[in-house]
Amino acid sequence: MSQTPSAPNETGLGTGRIMALADGVFAIVLTLLVLDLHAPAATTNAQLARQLKELLPPLLSFVVSFAVVGIFWYGHHMESHWIRRSDRVHLGITLALLLTICFVPFSAALLGRTQQLPVAASIYGVNLLVAGLVRYGHWVYATRGNRLVDAGIDPELVRHVRRVFLLVTVLYLLAITIAWLSTIVAIGCFAAIPVLYVIPARQTRHLTSLRPAS
Amino acid sequence: MSQTPSAPNETGLGTGRIMALADGVFAIVLTLLVLDLHAPAATTNAQLARQLKELLPPLLSFVVSFAVVGIFWYGHHMESHWIRRSDRVHLGITLALLLTICFVPFSAALLGRTQQLPVAASIYGVNLLVAGLVRYGHWVYATRGNRLVDAGIDPELVRHVRRVFLLVTVLYLLAITIAWLSTIVAIGCFAAIPVLYVIPARQTRHLTSLRPAS
Amino acid sequence: MSQTPSAPNETGLGTGRIMALADGVFAIVLTLLVLDLHAPAATTNAQLARQLKELLPPLLSFVVSFAVVGIFWYGHHMESHWIRRSDRVHLGITLALLLTICFVPFSAALLGRTQQLPVAASIYGVNLLVAGLVRYGHWVYATRGNRLVDAGIDPELVRHVRRVFLLVTVLYLLAITIAWLSTIVAIGCFAAIPVLYVIPARQTRHLTSLRPAS
Amino acid sequence: MSQTPSAPNETGLGTGRIMALADGVFAIVLTLLVLDLHAPAATTNAQLARQLKELLPPLLSFVVSFAVVGIFWYGHHMESHWIRRSDRVHLGITLALLLTICFVPFSAALLGRTQQLPVAASIYGVNLLVAGLVRYGHWVYATRGNRLVDAGIDPELVRHVRRVFLLVTVLYLLAITIAWLSTIVAIGCFAAIPVLYVIPARQTRHLTSLRPAS
Repeated sequence: MSQTPSAPNETGLGTGRIMALADGVFAIVLTLLVLDLHAPAATTNAQLARQLKELLPPLLSFVVSFAVVGIFWYGHHMESHWIRRSDRVHLGITLALLLTICFVPFSAALLGRTQQLPVAASIYGVNLLVAGLVRYGHWVYATRGNRLVDAGIDPELVRHVRRVFLLVTVLYLLAITIAWLSTIVAIGCFAAIPVLYVIPARQTRHLTSLRPAS
Repeated sequence: MSQTPSAPNETGLGTGRIMALADGVFAIVLTLLVLDLHAPAATTNAQLARQLKELLPPLLSFVVSFAVVGIFWYGHHMESHWIRRSDRVHLGITLALLLTICFVPFSAALLGRTQQLPVAASIYGVNLLVAGLVRYGHWVYATRGNRLVDAGIDPELVRHVRRVFLLVTVLYLLAITIAWLSTIVAIGCFAAIPVLYVIPARQTRHLTSLRPAS
Repeated sequence: MSQTPSAPNETGLGTGRIMALADGVFAIVLTLLVLDLHAPAATTNAQLARQLKELLPPLLSFVVSFAVVGIFWYGHHMESHWIRRSDRVHLGITLALLLTICFVPFSAALLGRTQQLPVAASIYGVNLLVAGLVRYGHWVYATRGNRLVDAGIDPELVRHVRRVFLLVTVLYLLAITIAWLSTIVAIGCFAAIPVLYVIPARQTRHLTSLRPAS
Repeated sequence: MSQTPSAPNETGLGTGRIMALADGVFAIVLTLLVLDLHAPAATTNAQLARQLKELLPPLLSFVVSFAVVGIFWYGHHMESHWIRRSDRVHLGITLALLLTICFVPFSAALLGRTQQLPVAASIYGVNLLVAGLVRYGHWVYATRGNRLVDAGIDPELVRHVRRVFLLVTVLYLLAITIAWLSTIVAIGCFAAIPVLYVIPARQTRHLTSLRPAS
């Protein structure tokens, strides 16, 4: 399941099963997103085409949310690469993160049905903002004094990931504000943020290449 | 998947795939809970706000149930840490535990829709009570005469976990009784019980830190 | 995930990921069964009690189907213990088995809604019968000439499992016939068959204790 | 989870958790397909039989889609056997592939409800075509200059898999064209393509037997 699950008998809880649960939750959330796209029943091609056109907003919400959740999974994957042990607080924060991820199918469905309304776009944004904040706390908790990570981890990497995670929450805050001016621009931001996050600046790429600090 | 899946050829059934199935079931139940939150379709912000307000009871049920199931997963995770082998009875008890967990999305939806009714809160509580009793039986079966656990396990840990698991069922019984006086207080109890369970008394914490008895 | 996933580079396909897919499918099917229990929305305890009473048939179908699918998972688990490699045909049979398992939520829902009708009980029975036959074929294919199993497997175990798997299909055939006399007795049979299957005769228990033949 | 998950500390990202996520997504998609088969509630056998007859088109769509997704899983399984490392682009392509797979329950439901309409059959075909193209890109990216695969991989195998993946997309393109003449023939093609793909020509079978090139 996980490439480097810590043995549980070293110190505290192992991380293997937590990652298994997290992978399961992420996989199911990714798949459930499509359930809000209800296939229409039509009798002519023209009628079907018209009905499918009405599905464009939820389809957009589906694709954006898939990217968002996929990138959150990637972030969790990257964090897990460095985290060697677990404890009760870490487990609690992880469950809180999964709670925010499990909420995405709801807020994505809301966005798909009422995407012209700033309230819907804001709820979607707040969901991602809270997920981002919990993730930030997750990383800070795990890395403070190398609590749960490798002793040999590069301090610059710790700071870099912290900065990226914080930047993402600021961007979500910005997108929520934009939602009250134009919801479609806000949705564009929600789609763009994960992409930005994947493409790190050239000078920091070496930090996130997941090579253990040697 | 599991940090210490026993090799199956030692004695009886291995535990790796049972934990894989359990992790899968827990992950799916956690994720399905949100399906009872139906995103409304509104045309104005005010209308949407009104409809969202009606979603508060199921939202509360969602968050409480997520915590409850998450903590049941944690309890199973902790037990599995000590269980080294499996047999047919253990497998049957595990399936019975998963049955009670799979029932939570139903009783959570019931609670979300009719949370003012003692019958709904009681059914929710009975579901958790039965899950707690099955879990208690699971631990007693596994540990009696070190049937499925490490020979070197600390007997005090065995007793401590047994006591905690029994205490939780007593608390659920209490919460069910309270439901007939006030359902909202009962729901508060359902939310509080998993939290209490995570924060053990200082003097027993060393017992549940998942270090193998040495 | 699996306790003894064969290394894929020995001969043909490894079995680790096939078991991962199978565990995932079984876990999801077990969990989806509850989705057919729709939580009612009531305003009084009496009304709720009345509505819950109407849920008894689907509830019965849920519990029986959970047991049936759980025991099919156990059978697959036991088979996998002995299967060391895979090939294209094995993969095709496994997918066919998963197809029949994935169909259970549908036939269970059908049984839950129209359990007084022999047609519904028969469809349910045929689903399980076909699943049983595919499983029988799965075992015969894997064990003929020790094609996919350990060379050291006890031939008596091979024959015993084959006999049990065949007996189960005969029992399902019998239950289907009974459904045309009394559907409730047939449902009782569907519930009893997995239980019988778990409790093997004392004299054969040593064969299925999952100890590798030494 | 995976039989040969690369250690993540060799070069770039490990592949274990990506495969875990992919296995999860494939398992859930396979299982969700049945959710579009709604069990009818009838009061007589004759009425039930009539209602079940109306379920034949979605049933056909379910079985065909199960085979299609199952074979896509197999293709991914086979690719993963050779892929030793991951990087950001690979991860992005994998998420794109999972996105197209997650879309199948929608297009399968559409096909099940309006299978006489060329628009529905075309959307289904375009979904599979895009999935096939992404998979082709996945393989080309991974194997170009042995970027993510074993250095010792047989170049003939690389070319063979590339050819098969490309051929499949051409066949889907053909099936989409046929859909405008006869949707039922097109559905037959959708069902036949995975089968063809499983049965490779005798002379190339040795290439795809998943033995590492020695």
